[in-house]
Amino acid sequence: MSIAGISYLEIKRIIEMGLLEDIGVGDITTERLIGAEQRSRAVLLAKGEGVLAGIEVSAAVFKHLDPEAKIDIHIQDGQAIRAQDMIATISGRTRALLSGERLALNLVQRMSGIATQSRYLSGLISDQHAVLVDTRKTTPGLRSLEKYAVRVGGAANHRFALYDGVMLKDNHIHAAGGIMPAVQKVRCGIPHTMRIEVEVENLAQLEEALQAGADIVMLDNMDIAAMTEAVKLTRGRALLEASGGITAANLEAVAATGVNYISMGALTHSAPNVDISLKFVD
Amino acid sequence: MSIAGISYLEIKRIIEMGLLEDIGVGDITTERLIGAEQRSRAVLLAKGEGVLAGIEVSAAVFKHLDPEAKIDIHIQDGQAIRAQDMIATISGRTRALLSGERLALNLVQRMSGIATQSRYLSGLISDQHAVLVDTRKTTPGLRSLEKYAVRVGGAANHRFALYDGVMLKDNHIHAAGGIMPAVQKVRCGIPHTMRIEVEVENLAQLEEALQAGADIVMLDNMDIAAMTEAVKLTRGRALLEASGGITAANLEAVAATGVNYISMGALTHSAPNVDISLKFVD
Amino acid sequence: MSIAGISYLEIKRIIEMGLLEDIGVGDITTERLIGAEQRSRAVLLAKGEGVLAGIEVSAAVFKHLDPEAKIDIHIQDGQAIRAQDMIATISGRTRALLSGERLALNLVQRMSGIATQSRYLSGLISDQHAVLVDTRKTTPGLRSLEKYAVRVGGAANHRFALYDGVMLKDNHIHAAGGIMPAVQKVRCGIPHTMRIEVEVENLAQLEEALQAGADIVMLDNMDIAAMTEAVKLTRGRALLEASGGITAANLEAVAATGVNYISMGALTHSAPNVDISLKFVD
Amino acid sequence: MSIAGISYLEIKRIIEMGLLEDIGVGDITTERLIGAEQRSRAVLLAKGEGVLAGIEVSAAVFKHLDPEAKIDIHIQDGQAIRAQDMIATISGRTRALLSGERLALNLVQRMSGIATQSRYLSGLISDQHAVLVDTRKTTPGLRSLEKYAVRVGGAANHRFALYDGVMLKDNHIHAAGGIMPAVQKVRCGIPHTMRIEVEVENLAQLEEALQAGADIVMLDNMDIAAMTEAVKLTRGRALLEASGGITAANLEAVAATGVNYISMGALTHSAPNVDISLKFVD
Amino acid sequence: MSIAGISYLEIKRIIEMGLLEDIGVGDITTERLIGAEQRSRAVLLAKGEGVLAGIEVSAAVFKHLDPEAKIDIHIQDGQAIRAQDMIATISGRTRALLSGERLALNLVQRMSGIATQSRYLSGLISDQHAVLVDTRKTTPGLRSLEKYAVRVGGAANHRFALYDGVMLKDNHIHAAGGIMPAVQKVRCGIPHTMRIEVEVENLAQLEEALQAGADIVMLDNMDIAAMTEAVKLTRGRALLEASGGITAANLEAVAATGVNYISMGALTHSAPNVDISLKFVD
Amino acid sequence: MSIAGISYLEIKRIIEMGLLEDIGVGDITTERLIGAEQRSRAVLLAKGEGVLAGIEVSAAVFKHLDPEAKIDIHIQDGQAIRAQDMIATISGRTRALLSGERLALNLVQRMSGIATQSRYLSGLISDQHAVLVDTRKTTPGLRSLEKYAVRVGGAANHRFALYDGVMLKDNHIHAAGGIMPAVQKVRCGIPHTMRIEVEVENLAQLEEALQAGADIVMLDNMDIAAMTEAVKLTRGRALLEASGGITAANLEAVAATGVNYISMGALTHSAPNVDISLKFVD
Repeated sequence: MSIAGISYLEIKRIIEMGLLEDIGVGDITTERLIGAEQRSRAVLLAKGEGVLAGIEVSAAVFKHLDPEAKIDIHIQDGQAIRAQDMIATISGRTRALLSGERLALNLVQRMSGIATQSRYLSGLISDQHAVLVDTRKTTPGLRSLEKYAVRVGGAANHRFALYDGVMLKDNHIHAAGGIMPAVQKVRCGIPHTMRIEVEVENLAQLEEALQAGADIVMLDNMDIAAMTEAVKLTRGRALLEASGGITAANLEAVAATGVNYISMGALTHSAPNVDISLKFVD
Repeated sequence: MSIAGISYLEIKRIIEMGLLEDIGVGDITTERLIGAEQRSRAVLLAKGEGVLAGIEVSAAVFKHLDPEAKIDIHIQDGQAIRAQDMIATISGRTRALLSGERLALNLVQRMSGIATQSRYLSGLISDQHAVLVDTRKTTPGLRSLEKYAVRVGGAANHRFALYDGVMLKDNHIHAAGGIMPAVQKVRCGIPHTMRIEVEVENLAQLEEALQAGADIVMLDNMDIAAMTEAVKLTRGRALLEASGGITAANLEAVAATGVNYISMGALTHSAPNVDISLKFVD
Repeated sequence: MSIAGISYLEIKRIIEMGLLEDIGVGDITTERLIGAEQRSRAVLLAKGEGVLAGIEVSAAVFKHLDPEAKIDIHIQDGQAIRAQDMIATISGRTRALLSGERLALNLVQRMSGIATQSRYLSGLISDQHAVLVDTRKTTPGLRSLEKYAVRVGGAANHRFALYDGVMLKDNHIHAAGGIMPAVQKVRCGIPHTMRIEVEVENLAQLEEALQAGADIVMLDNMDIAAMTEAVKLTRGRALLEASGGITAANLEAVAATGVNYISMGALTHSAPNVDISLKFVD
Repeated sequence: MSIAGISYLEIKRIIEMGLLEDIGVGDITTERLIGAEQRSRAVLLAKGEGVLAGIEVSAAVFKHLDPEAKIDIHIQDGQAIRAQDMIATISGRTRALLSGERLALNLVQRMSGIATQSRYLSGLISDQHAVLVDTRKTTPGLRSLEKYAVRVGGAANHRFALYDGVMLKDNHIHAAGGIMPAVQKVRCGIPHTMRIEVEVENLAQLEEALQAGADIVMLDNMDIAAMTEAVKLTRGRALLEASGGITAANLEAVAATGVNYISMGALTHSAPNVDISLKFVD
Repeated sequence: MSIAGISYLEIKRIIEMGLLEDIGVGDITTERLIGAEQRSRAVLLAKGEGVLAGIEVSAAVFKHLDPEAKIDIHIQDGQAIRAQDMIATISGRTRALLSGERLALNLVQRMSGIATQSRYLSGLISDQHAVLVDTRKTTPGLRSLEKYAVRVGGAANHRFALYDGVMLKDNHIHAAGGIMPAVQKVRCGIPHTMRIEVEVENLAQLEEALQAGADIVMLDNMDIAAMTEAVKLTRGRALLEASGGITAANLEAVAATGVNYISMGALTHSAPNVDISLKFVD
Repeated sequence: MSIAGISYLEIKRIIEMGLLEDIGVGDITTERLIGAEQRSRAVLLAKGEGVLAGIEVSAAVFKHLDPEAKIDIHIQDGQAIRAQDMIATISGRTRALLSGERLALNLVQRMSGIATQSRYLSGLISDQHAVLVDTRKTTPGLRSLEKYAVRVGGAANHRFALYDGVMLKDNHIHAAGGIMPAVQKVRCGIPHTMRIEVEVENLAQLEEALQAGADIVMLDNMDIAAMTEAVKLTRGRALLEASGGITAANLEAVAATGVNYISMGALTHSAPNVDISLKFVD
């Protein structure tokens, strides 16, 4: 019952939140005019181009409103779409189609926008060994869907949240009295299944993090030269992640420094929607 | 206790949803390293430029985690910000600042992005009497915040949801047997405080809608010539709303046709974030 | 999946709230004595007379406890019932019938009471063009059901809540500095799909409201003479709604003044239940 | 933090349910026109007469919207009110007063209606030893408030729900194979802190129930003669409860039979509201 | 739809709470590696010995994740199990089996532990008329399941919670001014379906409680001699419950004093789990 | 506002769940007899011995019911307690103390039981470098508290749930076609902040897991000889975790094999409660 690698309770939460927001006590136009037994057929139609993501989530919206709805998916998540492509056909109660349309589209359009952005950016470094990863700069309440869309597009996920990964920043390190005691203290308090990531701003801090046994070091806002030096200095003792100030323009150069991971908030926070519409066919 | 014209239960729902998503059972890095009594001061700092929206919502995130936090807001919603502007100063428990940072930023960045887009687009027709309005193409779960941001930017809101406004589309009209019976039937079933909007695709349908007593007629995907003709034909018998295919490029021309309202999904669905960060100052 | 024009999430909320209240962790009498597989048949039987409303909601209660229950509805919402009428037959697990009985009856009895009151009062002015409408004087938590029952009885609905309609009262007007600025200010902040209603106590205020462009004017606690004068003065420039101090005794006289709408809290807040019982037949 | 003998989690549930229903994402009239810092004073004013119940619950509604609101209660629950009585004075944010008004009034009016009904009916038998008790014929979601109002009016409560009391009816007895095995079986499966009540329709069943060790016997729809006989036959071996077909007209006669308890659904299901309003005084 | 005498809403609450806690947004190992359509068969296998309780609840966990899962229960609640016993066979989607395994086991192991403890302790006094009952010393959130397991093991339940039974302790009695006024005051405020229990520490208090009309008297931490005396003194005027300091070692002696009920927290608060595992068979 | 390293939303969830379960609509004994303004002082008193855990959580229960309650904590989590130790003093409304007592005690007793078990078992290998860790064999709904208690006692935590750690078992490996492809496939789909753990049953599988790049290998149910061999064979290429069949009796021998981690379900699933009571002192 999971969808897109996400548990059904999370999917249900999102769909019920969206329906409650948009329908509330009732879709007054539809309820007053459309009979409960009336049925329609409609197609999800691409109007723009990009990478599809979220088609099963959208289908689940209609299933939620009409458990007997029949949905044929013609294009799968991860495939390219262009204008006029028929993505799926939905047959079911007209009320369900009309009342669920907006939520289903809002989800698939946003997710496809992120998958498209992710495909484009990860494609820029597809011949490098560096992996492009996302951040926690996601839409509050929709992170699970957005991180899935990132994977669909070909990039990878950083930690999901504050609860499933450790990232030591300035304040954490300062409070603990240095990188070494911070790493030691946190090591005792977290599962051994988690790696420890330390954020550094220069090579001296990098060396300190390596000494402390950091598993991952995030190179924060370093320039290409510094990152190149960091890779040399590290010699595989930790995974290196480049972060901050990375754009499509310099992404390739960053990857070429030899870092293992590159994280970009732009994967999720500013991807424009892919235009998709629902067209009734009878 | 309302914020941004939104009821406190809605604000609380969004903040708790966001905190639950990002913190879950606990921010392990912060909880293991930062003492409960440790306090810090930080500033919200603009790193990009645009129109600020959501500063009180962001402040509420920190208040939620530390009710004794003190927040001084230096720039108000609706004001322009540019890189390096100090938007607000927050003093409170370090744990609250670190654990709430991401949610607070994700909200204010998105809302400011929408306000910026809204200011820009509504500015293009500020000397016209047409009013730019949003649509239901918003982020599931965050519509209340996004519609507020639209208002902050200087545009106006269309209906909030399916429950508070009537929009008769093809399917509704077809099911009722025509525009006339559809308008009559829905009129009896809804509050007299609501206007009835009918979506039309050509002038013949417009005339029919006017005869039926539609309060608002949405001109769907009409070209400039047709809209101009529609305004003439209508002679003030109903409010006219232009919709579909409207971009920054043709917005002014659409407004010049004399329609009363112009709705654009782009106000909310694809506005890029405004970059804002939290910087600890002690 | 909607029932009575109400979204299924709202119906589900009400039924789960009611079951949780009445059954809690378990119906101890039934659980200890009735086998899980035992089945029974029962009929919903009218014991008093009135207008039926809520039969599908009651049926949904039993379906909630036993998804395989079979319910034949013999009398539909809106039809008259009198003592001994068989309203519906329910076949299903005995536990579901016994545990759901009270909630199902409490709902249908109350809704039928309101429909009956609504039929009676709206019948008093059926030959007039004035429309009888309800108010927000409903049972907290059950407004959607009660407003539906009003419609079943033949009266109409006023705004559903504070979020879907505008009503300017004394305090709003005072705070804005007069009716004119109040109407203008609120007009910019709300969807153009909403009409603006202004509450007035005398003809001077009525004139001011008309000048300000109010769409609807509520004549609050005016006597027949004043309302008659108000209708004349208005000349169709706005819809007029009579409110306050209206009873069965003066309803017809109020309608005769020519107002468009008459709102009565008594439609919902004090309607006596219609007696309906569940009788096991085998 | 409990109110009216009800736990604060239950009070909070009801208030939040009511506010969500009536305010939703926002009271648009009030939010657009009234400043966040504006304050007002208002009085709860009786417009009808009866027994007050629910004043603290109503006060809690305003406190919920404005924790700094100051509420002076002049008349306490259980006291008689008549038109023009000032029940309480509320000072606080104008927005809280306007947005909370309807919910606060809907609650106190309904509760006072029930207390008034309860005072009247219990007064009819105040010189008898029989105790008047309520039933489960209450408003779904508001039972805790309504049962409190019954106590305020001077009557008593029957079991709260299906989970806290045992009542053996026809079906239970039939399924267990008779009154005797039913009582024995249920006795083993419930806490020894609960009494067992058996519903009987005639004296033969009464004798059987007494033999089986029923703690309470409900005499269902018996006439006065039969009840008189039942009391004699019982000789204190069990508590007797009269139920069914009891009205103000025959209540005294029923009490005179010597039964211990008399249950009436009319205490809660059809009590007309007591009219109470909120008047702004500055 | 109830399970184990517990309402389905309570069962659903527990299962969703458990799944949310353990799966959250997704079981990453399973979602990444196991196909949605893959199916498996597994057996619930006893690895320790005891009394089985909770098999239907465990089955419901898998049904929750895969409504089409097929579960054959070979051993019923209340039956003895020993190592290698096949308790049930589950066939369904592999994802559901892997993701639900831990919750299903955690529930059935704990419940079986309590049933085993309950069977053992109640067996010690099976030839006495005293009934062994549990207390409110249960796991927060799981009381309904644990009280069911007590019954499965052959002991009985005390009141479920603070809302469904009355227990007068020192503080209640002191606040009311003595046992007599306390009993009288509480009698008027509670349903007549509830018995009143009074906690006493010596025979003088017992006599006072009997005079006051207590239905049940709890003898708190009395020694065998005092309890024997208490039984004599009471002469059946009330039910007597022994409580405090009771262990397997003195249980039989306590029962021999003639008290009616013996309550032991150890039935629920410290029962070791029975070891049960899930073994995939294809 | 976090407590015990756990987010306040999680703490609030647990406390509200517990209060709802135990108090429901009201603590009838307390509400009927104790005045709202009455105040008391009580002490948390140890009656058994062990390691204290959960005192702040217990305090939060009382604070929840009476925000003005004053709680002085005399003994902190992690300190040893023995009978008659005064753990804390609570002053507040009598109602809050009486209604919250059971939940507060049920939590602190269970948590202290786990901390005590954890202290005892980890003490057995305190001179070894192996770290004792818990499992997911925790009480559904209370895992966050129980894992905290494990840390208090001196052991460490394994992954929290299925969402924050990867564990490849038989079925995962089989479905992926071997350890190598399983590790590779899951590596791409999870955050780089997570280590990958593979469960093996023999040395051949161990070698395969090491080749595949497993970060942690769980040696499932191996005997001492095999584990010793495994450590040699691994030569630090991965972390080794011993699991299955480990008891107090063989724990030291297992640690002596040189494995890095030892996981024991007995830390949480069968720890007996530590007896703690609440004694009113005035």
